[in-house]
Amino acid sequence: MAAHGDGFSEVSMEDLMGQVENRQISTIVFIIAMQKEAQPLINRLRLVKDVNSPFPKEVTWVLFNGMYKDLNISIVCPGKDSTLGVDSVGTVPASLVTYASIQAMKPDLIINAGTAGGFKAKGASIADVYIVSSAAFHDRRIPVPGLDLYGVGMRKAFPTPNLIKELNLKVGRLSTGDSMDMPPHDKDSITANDATVKDMEGAAVVYVADIFKVPTILLKGVTDIVDGNRPTSEEFLENLAAVTAKLDESVTKVIDFINGKCLSDL
Amino acid sequence: MAAHGDGFSEVSMEDLMGQVENRQISTIVFIIAMQKEAQPLINRLRLVKDVNSPFPKEVTWVLFNGMYKDLNISIVCPGKDSTLGVDSVGTVPASLVTYASIQAMKPDLIINAGTAGGFKAKGASIADVYIVSSAAFHDRRIPVPGLDLYGVGMRKAFPTPNLIKELNLKVGRLSTGDSMDMPPHDKDSITANDATVKDMEGAAVVYVADIFKVPTILLKGVTDIVDGNRPTSEEFLENLAAVTAKLDESVTKVIDFINGKCLSDL
Repeated sequence: MAAHGDGFSEVSMEDLMGQVENRQISTIVFIIAMQKEAQPLINRLRLVKDVNSPFPKEVTWVLFNGMYKDLNISIVCPGKDSTLGVDSVGTVPASLVTYASIQAMKPDLIINAGTAGGFKAKGASIADVYIVSSAAFHDRRIPVPGLDLYGVGMRKAFPTPNLIKELNLKVGRLSTGDSMDMPPHDKDSITANDATVKDMEGAAVVYVADIFKVPTILLKGVTDIVDGNRPTSEEFLENLAAVTAKLDESVTKVIDFINGKCLSDL
Repeated sequence: MAAHGDGFSEVSMEDLMGQVENRQISTIVFIIAMQKEAQPLINRLRLVKDVNSPFPKEVTWVLFNGMYKDLNISIVCPGKDSTLGVDSVGTVPASLVTYASIQAMKPDLIINAGTAGGFKAKGASIADVYIVSSAAFHDRRIPVPGLDLYGVGMRKAFPTPNLIKELNLKVGRLSTGDSMDMPPHDKDSITANDATVKDMEGAAVVYVADIFKVPTILLKGVTDIVDGNRPTSEEFLENLAAVTAKLDESVTKVIDFINGKCLSDL
């Protein structure tokens, strides 16, 4: 039916959105920056590396997939930098894999899971797992009207009131930037973003998913206390294994809750 | 021919590279962050907006294309943010359009053209047009061995000694970050990157193009002096029109030089 200016098209769109939200969730794509963060989940869900991935042959992106209960689950990691052999963390690779995964797999839901810094002033402790209410950038300062808000790029995650209640999850805002440290300029922006957790990918994943209107959930395990006394990189490396194990437990509970449900049930 | 461990495959690869470099350049994709920066060039080359672009229907990316002399030229702009109506500047949209343009158009050459801040301490003046020798990031600080270099992400642009000599172009290193200002942490990184010009997209374009081994040239017109006395955003807006006109002149000379040539002639 062609769109009309008389309200018909809006009604149809509402119906369509209702149908989508009331259809059982079938395909979930996880975007996970580091394979070490992903490995416990890959093992637990018995996912298999896809050697014929739909991505271009030149990229280092790694795709694991398989069925878990009624869900078709994929985990996509940006993989190792081809020159330096380190995980391709940060917003640029995260946005590329999110874009290519949406094109290739048309997921019903994206879940960005990974580690994050937490702010004790906002109640965060090591090994807490947060579900994110909204994500914004803290290192895109553009003091030109309109571009300032674009730079911050605050976007809400998909609302999941039932999931939060059932699993008793901690809820907090996320602030994303491409650096692991926190100089004064970033601190001011993170405070303005009212963030409880700080990562290096989340807001970029939500930015891309939002273009395609793919509902997105973000789960962040706290590896270090940003407003504590120890250097982030030291605490991060020390707690990485224990926190990814904890994150894996929470993510599995989340998937078990999602299985058999519609978006509107979350 | 299958790859051997005896040197045969390396020889074949060299031959292949030689063939590619000695084939006349046919398809050029310009990545330009702001449509205002692109418009003089769109007009001059008589490019037409592609209403059936190969990009997904959900994106705001704008594609202009046409033949200019023997060259199939496309200009891709990330377009206006769908919520805020401002140009989608910065590394995330730039990396997405570069990725999608390479997939759709398989260009022989990418040219990232746009405005930049210049450092007078390195010899830059308002309205200078620089060709970039290398690009790196200044706002991705990750103090973990290996990840530190990954964060900086220094990559060489495609070498163009003949082009530089013929057109008498100024040459300088580029440093890229998602903010328009320059707090102390960014300044230190920009100094470490030995940058003459500072922009918000270049290193991201080169990162993506490098994955696919697409030769990339970057041309940057100086709209503001970063180490001067005036606020960047004020100077930028004041000089934008004049500098894009100057940039357009230089870009046209560059295209005229490239026309009929191979990569190895540049």
